[in-house]
Amino acid sequence: MIKHDSIRAVRWQDDHLDLLDQRLLPQQQKLLSCTTAQETADAIRNMVVRGAPAIGITAAYGVVLAAIQHQKKSAEAWQAAMHAEIGTLSASRPTAVNLSWALKRMQRSMETITGDPVPALLAEAHTILEEDIVANRRMGELGAELIEEGSGVLTHCNTGSLATGGYGTALGVIRTAYAQGKICQVFADETRPWLQGARLTAWELVQDGIPVQLNTDSAAAWLMKQGKVQWVIVGADRIAANGDTANKIGTYNLAVTAKYHGVKVMVVAPTSTIDMAISSGEEIPIETRPDSELLEWNGQRIAAEGANAWNPVFDVTPIDLIDVIVTDKGMFGKSQVQKTTNGMDGGLG
Amino acid sequence: MIKHDSIRAVRWQDDHLDLLDQRLLPQQQKLLSCTTAQETADAIRNMVVRGAPAIGITAAYGVVLAAIQHQKKSAEAWQAAMHAEIGTLSASRPTAVNLSWALKRMQRSMETITGDPVPALLAEAHTILEEDIVANRRMGELGAELIEEGSGVLTHCNTGSLATGGYGTALGVIRTAYAQGKICQVFADETRPWLQGARLTAWELVQDGIPVQLNTDSAAAWLMKQGKVQWVIVGADRIAANGDTANKIGTYNLAVTAKYHGVKVMVVAPTSTIDMAISSGEEIPIETRPDSELLEWNGQRIAAEGANAWNPVFDVTPIDLIDVIVTDKGMFGKSQVQKTTNGMDGGLG
Repeated sequence: MIKHDSIRAVRWQDDHLDLLDQRLLPQQQKLLSCTTAQETADAIRNMVVRGAPAIGITAAYGVVLAAIQHQKKSAEAWQAAMHAEIGTLSASRPTAVNLSWALKRMQRSMETITGDPVPALLAEAHTILEEDIVANRRMGELGAELIEEGSGVLTHCNTGSLATGGYGTALGVIRTAYAQGKICQVFADETRPWLQGARLTAWELVQDGIPVQLNTDSAAAWLMKQGKVQWVIVGADRIAANGDTANKIGTYNLAVTAKYHGVKVMVVAPTSTIDMAISSGEEIPIETRPDSELLEWNGQRIAAEGANAWNPVFDVTPIDLIDVIVTDKGMFGKSQVQKTTNGMDGGLG
Repeated sequence: MIKHDSIRAVRWQDDHLDLLDQRLLPQQQKLLSCTTAQETADAIRNMVVRGAPAIGITAAYGVVLAAIQHQKKSAEAWQAAMHAEIGTLSASRPTAVNLSWALKRMQRSMETITGDPVPALLAEAHTILEEDIVANRRMGELGAELIEEGSGVLTHCNTGSLATGGYGTALGVIRTAYAQGKICQVFADETRPWLQGARLTAWELVQDGIPVQLNTDSAAAWLMKQGKVQWVIVGADRIAANGDTANKIGTYNLAVTAKYHGVKVMVVAPTSTIDMAISSGEEIPIETRPDSELLEWNGQRIAAEGANAWNPVFDVTPIDLIDVIVTDKGMFGKSQVQKTTNGMDGGLG
C-alpha cells in the first residue's frame, strides 16, 4: 500500500504547469495553474511549492512556459526575453541552490536548440524531474543501509514527494527503511513557523500508512534524552564544498542536540544540492521571510502589536555535526569531504 | 514608565477571585470569575492562569473560596469538605510544586484557626501573593547583578507578572537589568505549543516599553551562533534538591544549545519552587497535555487526520547545564547545590 506515488507537487499538463498548493494542505488539495514564468516565480516565492528539489523542477518548467510565450518573436528578442524570465525565476528564493542548478541546465539546453525550443526544453524539464525521482530512490536505498533495525528516526520539515519530483530525500530514506522493517517509530518536528512537519510530512506518512508522531521543535532534545531517537534524518537546501549544510531553520538546533545525545545525523540530498562554488556554509545566503509568519496565524495577529520577530527560514549546520551526507552518487562523511576539498579523490565532487 | 504593576493575573475581589483569562491574551483582556474551589481548579487545569507561582497563589485563593462555601457546616463536616477541595486543587496540574506548597501553607494556617476561617485564610492568601512579589523584586536585583552591560538575553515561555503575583521571575530579572541599562536586546522564544512567548511575554514587554524580538523555538541555537545571546534566563516549575530543574518544554533544548555555544543559563525561581523532598529531576512528574494543542489551532485541525502528537509540556534540565539558580534567598551554582545535598551548609536548603 505505497501511496506516495500519487502525490505529485509539480505536474506538467499539456500547455501549463499544475502545482499542488502546499499552503492549503492538508485541509485542501487544490491545484494552482501557472502559464507564465512570472506566475511560476510568484508560486515559488509564495511557497505554493517548496522544497529545494521541487523548486528546481518547478523553475525548469517555468523556463518552458517562458519559451511557449516568447518563441514566436525574433531569434534575438526571444533570447533576451528568456534571459529576463530566467533571472526572475532565479531570484524567487535565495537559499536552495537547486533552483539555479536547474535553470543553468535549462540554459545549456537552450544553447543547442535550433527551431522550436519548446519540445526540447519540455523534454529537459521532464528529464530533470524524472532524474530527481531516480536519485531519491537511490538515496533511499543507500541511506536505509545505515539504519539499524528497531531504530527511531526524527525528521524535520518536509522532504517527501511534496518537496521533490517524488518519493523524497530524507523522507525517501525513511520510506525505504520503514519498508525494510528497520524503523520502529517516525518522529516529526512540527517545524515552525510554516508547520511543514505537521501539515505536509504527517500527511504524506499517513497516506503511506507509516505511523508518525509529531512533536514541537523544542521537544526534540527531550525526546532524544528518552533514548527514543537513533537517527536525525534531514534534507538540504544547499551544501557547500566542505559539507556545511543549509537546511530549514531548526536543523542546526537538532544537530547540536543530537551531538550532545550521541544521536547520529544524516543529511540526504541529490548532487544538485551541492554548491562546489562555495567553500563553506558561511557563504550560503540565508533567506529571512516576513515576520508575519510568526506574528500572525491565518492573517490574525498572535503577538502583541509592537513586538517584532526574527524569521530566518534556514540555518547552516557545520559538517562537524553531520555523520553522513547521502547523495545519489554515494555517501560521504566528514573525513571524505575534507579529502575532496583538499584536492584529493572522492568526496562531494 | 513601568507598566507591569497594572498587570495582575490573579486578583481577589470582595467575595470572589478574578483571573485574567490568559487563553485570550493579547487580543482580549477578559476576567474570569471563580466562586468555588472547583471552578478555581478548572481554571488552573484549563490554563486560564498558568505559571508556577501564579497557580500556587490561585490555589491559595481557591482554599478561601472553599472556606466561604463550607464554613457554615459543622466543624467536622467543614474539615472534611475542605480536605476534598484541597485535593481537587492539588490535582489540577502535576508539575509545578508551588501549587502543593501553597496548599500546604493554607492547610497549616487552617489548623490554628478557631471561629470563622475566612478572614484568616484570606489574609494568608494575600500574604502568599505579596511575598511572591517581594521575592520577585529581590530576585530581579540579584539576577541583574550577574548580567554584564550590553548583554543580549533570551527567555522562554512567560515568567512575568502573568506567571506570578506580579513583576516576574526570569522576566523580573530582565526588567531590572533592562532598567539598569545592562540589556541591549531581549529575545523571546515563541514557545510552542501554547505560544506563551508570543502571546504573553511579548505583550508584557511591549507594555513596559522594552523592545522584544520573537523567534521560533528552533531558531534559538542559530541566534546563539550569531553571538547575540549572553544569557538564557528562564523560570522553573519545580527544582529538585540537587538543582535539576523542570520548566516549560524546550528549556532543556535551550540549555543544551547554550552549553554548546558558551552561553550562560540562569534559572530564576522563588524558594517555593524548590522541592527538597526529591533528590533529582528524574522524580519530577512531567505533565503531558492533549495532543490537540499541536494538532489543532483554535479548534481547527492543522495536521492530517491519523497523525498523533507527543505533548509533554515540561522537561528537566540537569544542574550540569545550569550556571546559576537565583532564588529570593540567594544564588546557587552547581557546586553549592552539591554541598547542600551532601549535608553541608548553604545551597538550596
